Amino acid sequence: MASSVFSKVILLCSFAVGFQLVRPGNIFPLNPTPCLAPTEWEGRAVEYDHSTGRNKRVLITYDSPNQRIRVFEERKGHFPCKKFYEYIYLYQDAVLFQIEQKTNICAKLPLTDAWDPYDIPANSTYEDQYYIGGPGDQIQVQEWSDRKPSRAHENWVGVYTLKDCYPVYETYTKNYSVTTSTRFFDLQPGISDPSVFTPPSSCQTANPRKMSDTC
Amino acid sequence: MASSVFSKVILLCSFAVGFQLVRPGNIFPLNPTPCLAPTEWEGRAVEYDHSTGRNKRVLITYDSPNQRIRVFEERKGHFPCKKFYEYIYLYQDAVLFQIEQKTNICAKLPLTDAWDPYDIPANSTYEDQYYIGGPGDQIQVQEWSDRKPSRAHENWVGVYTLKDCYPVYETYTKNYSVTTSTRFFDLQPGISDPSVFTPPSSCQTANPRKMSDTC
Repeated sequence: MASSVFSKVILLCSFAVGFQLVRPGNIFPLNPTPCLAPTEWEGRAVEYDHSTGRNKRVLITYDSPNQRIRVFEERKGHFPCKKFYEYIYLYQDAVLFQIEQKTNICAKLPLTDAWDPYDIPANSTYEDQYYIGGPGDQIQVQEWSDRKPSRAHENWVGVYTLKDCYPVYETYTKNYSVTTSTRFFDLQPGISDPSVFTPPSSCQTANPRKMSDTC
Repeated sequence: MASSVFSKVILLCSFAVGFQLVRPGNIFPLNPTPCLAPTEWEGRAVEYDHSTGRNKRVLITYDSPNQRIRVFEERKGHFPCKKFYEYIYLYQDAVLFQIEQKTNICAKLPLTDAWDPYDIPANSTYEDQYYIGGPGDQIQVQEWSDRKPSRAHENWVGVYTLKDCYPVYETYTKNYSVTTSTRFFDLQPGISDPSVFTPPSSCQTANPRKMSDTC
C-alpha cells in the first residue's frame, strides 16, 4: 500500500517535470528534443571504415560556423608502408586538400558532398537514453537516428552527451550495411589554432588526384 | 627558460609516478597493464552485426564465475514481422537455449565456442587511453587489442573504463572485416536475479534447431 502510494507520487512528480519513470534508475524523457551540439571544438576520433576493415586514428578540428573540418591522421601502431595524411575540408569553397605528412605533397580535390555538421538534426528520431561507464563513473547520453516509420533501418545513428551535447559515436549506413562508424574522445571546446585550416604552400601547385594510403 | 625548467620538472614528476606526459591534459601510462574487469554485472548493450546490418538491443546478465550469459532482446523501435528472443548461454554445459519471448518456444543448441569473458586478456596490446564525453562530463577509458607485431590488423578491440574496468565497446573481426561490435551501457554490479539462467519448462522438450529472427 505504502509502496503503491509512493509509486504514484513518483509517477506524478515524473510527469510534472516532463519525465517518465520506466525502470528503477532510468529516467526517459517524454518528448525528447535534440540538443544543440557545440559548433567549434578540437578532439580525437577513431574512424572505422567497414569497406576496408581499417581503423583510422585522427585529430579533428571542427569549425561549424565556417563549415570546415581539419583531420590529421595519428601515427599509432605499426603499419608497414602506410602513408599518413592531413585533410582540410573547406565546404564553403567545395574543396578538400589532402597533404602527405612527411613530404607535404598536396592534392586539391573537389568536395561535392553537402556540409553535414556533427549534430542532431531537428527532425531526428529519438532512440534511447543511457549511461556509458561503470557505477559512479558514467556519462549520460542520448541516441538519435534518421529512422522513419516507413523504413526498417536507419542510415545515421548519433550518440551525444546529454550535458553539453558533445558527440560520442556516429555511424553512417548505405544500402543496409554500415560504411563508417566514428568514436569521438578528448574533446575540448574552441579552436586553439585556426591556422590549421590554411593549406601549406605546397597546395598552390597541388595535383587534382587523390593520393593512396599505401605505397 | 622558466617554461623549460617547468617542463623538466613536470617530466621528472611524471616519470616518478610512472606516467608520461605526451600532450597537455593527456597522461599516458608508461607500462600499462590490463585492468581486471568485474565478473558479475547486469546491463544493456547494442550489438551491431555487420553481416546482416542489424542493430540488436539487449539486456545482459553476465556471470563469469559460472561461465554463463543471459541475453534478452529489447522490443524497441518498429520492426514488422520480427521475433524477439531470450538467449541463455551455459558454457560449462556447452548448451545454448533460445527462447521465443511471446510463445516460450525453446530451442536447445550445442555451444561449441570456448568461454570468452568480457575482460582484457593478460597478453593484450595497449592501444590508447582517452576521455569519452564533453569537458567536465567524461569517463576515462583504455583501449586494448589482440594486435601482434607480425599482424597489421587486430581481431579484437576492447574499450574499458579505467576506474573499475567496465566494458564500454568491443569489436570482433574475422578475415579483415568486422563481424560484430557491441556498445555497453547502464551497467550495474552483481546479479539481482540468478533465476534468469534457469531455462523455462518449455526447454525440457526443446527442439535442436536455431529459430529464425523473422517470420
